[in-house]
Amino acid sequence: MSEEQAIVRSALIIIGNEILSGRTQDANLNYLAKQLTALGIQLSEVRAIRDDMEEIVSSVNSLRKRYDYVFTTGGIGPTHDDITCESIAKAFGRKYVLNLKAKKILEDYYDGSSNKLNEARLRMAHTPEGALLVDNPISKAPGFIVENVIVLAGIPAVMRAMFESVAPTLRTGRRILSKSISVMTGEGDIASVLTDIQLKWDSVEIGSYPFVKDGNYGTSLVLRSSNIKILELAYEELLQNMDQISVLYEVED
Amino acid sequence: MSEEQAIVRSALIIIGNEILSGRTQDANLNYLAKQLTALGIQLSEVRAIRDDMEEIVSSVNSLRKRYDYVFTTGGIGPTHDDITCESIAKAFGRKYVLNLKAKKILEDYYDGSSNKLNEARLRMAHTPEGALLVDNPISKAPGFIVENVIVLAGIPAVMRAMFESVAPTLRTGRRILSKSISVMTGEGDIASVLTDIQLKWDSVEIGSYPFVKDGNYGTSLVLRSSNIKILELAYEELLQNMDQISVLYEVED
Repeated sequence: MSEEQAIVRSALIIIGNEILSGRTQDANLNYLAKQLTALGIQLSEVRAIRDDMEEIVSSVNSLRKRYDYVFTTGGIGPTHDDITCESIAKAFGRKYVLNLKAKKILEDYYDGSSNKLNEARLRMAHTPEGALLVDNPISKAPGFIVENVIVLAGIPAVMRAMFESVAPTLRTGRRILSKSISVMTGEGDIASVLTDIQLKWDSVEIGSYPFVKDGNYGTSLVLRSSNIKILELAYEELLQNMDQISVLYEVED
Repeated sequence: MSEEQAIVRSALIIIGNEILSGRTQDANLNYLAKQLTALGIQLSEVRAIRDDMEEIVSSVNSLRKRYDYVFTTGGIGPTHDDITCESIAKAFGRKYVLNLKAKKILEDYYDGSSNKLNEARLRMAHTPEGALLVDNPISKAPGFIVENVIVLAGIPAVMRAMFESVAPTLRTGRRILSKSISVMTGEGDIASVLTDIQLKWDSVEIGSYPFVKDGNYGTSLVLRSSNIKILELAYEELLQNMDQISVLYEVED
């Protein structure tokens, strides 16, 4: 197996009480899931945890050993409840230090601005010792990388800009391709056919997702594989079977 | 401390490859977070994991020991990729059996329907041995409860109906109250005042959430506590301080 074909796996840790209290609807999981999938990095697991240093440390340390990359979102601002940076430093047993490159970025940004680079904002120039910075073209205060842990902002627009900065540097792996159809037949009536096709094409991941349209049950079927030939063969077989038992509703790409 | 004042903690496990591939935007986390918070049950942690038996078993077994309740969503339909029920049975070391009450519910539902209670649909009448059923007023196939693990559907409308069925039976605890204001001042300019207030009112959780409105930075401040008197005192002090350093933007309830 060549290096291009290896699976690269990642996890995401969403940090913030506001997600768990329901005050804020997370928008980062779905964005990162789509982006990582498109790049050829599997998002294998997501955790949403509270702004609690022990919880951040234990989640980071548990996941960074198991996955190629761990992304975190949230908790890197200037206020007392932003404790992600200190927690990452603690997880790696590194000092939490003023990063001179980050300080320079903030000095340049606030120089001539009506806002001052005060002590609170200077917190955003602190990172674990030896961290690499992640560019933030929007509000400047950078994210950072320590080993395989990539620390991003929680505000969706800033998180996206940071992710775009870091994406070209990521090692990518086997890209998963997918083909989908939707049929106006309930899952219960196609389940046994699906099971047969899944058993035959065991390297293809076949997902079955029920929906309701105009009061009728339908099912979206998604086939996923890194091998285009096998994917198309399995898809052809699925189409033929669906033709026999269902009104074909929509073929998606 | 009386029993009413105890904190009741819970975790949520979102099961499904479609969430992690980005195909589906999860809608259950935010709904459950709001409902649980309103009931007086803290949502302490959320995990999104793949349709993988070992991962489901290990997540369930890790979380059910640490929290009063564990909710799961997804993976209880009739198709081959619905493996939540078998996984829960395995996590508890219980047999995976035909539940006669669930079978009766499905027989009544499909009797006279154009759909048949075939082998695939009968899978939805299987549960871990000794499970209690959770009523599903929408599509009938029930959720279930084993000890402190509550297994719900993934389709948001069905999940919500199941949660409403089970909510009145849940043990609830200390209810968290909140008060919020939004100010048109960046976090960096109010951070030191917030730190002082947080240190003084250490039983109040003060969250600070930046936003951008019409190109200007603002901050939403959320104070949360189970003690209404302390919450109001901390809030008064926050208001007085914000009056001095910021244009008050909006007071929310």
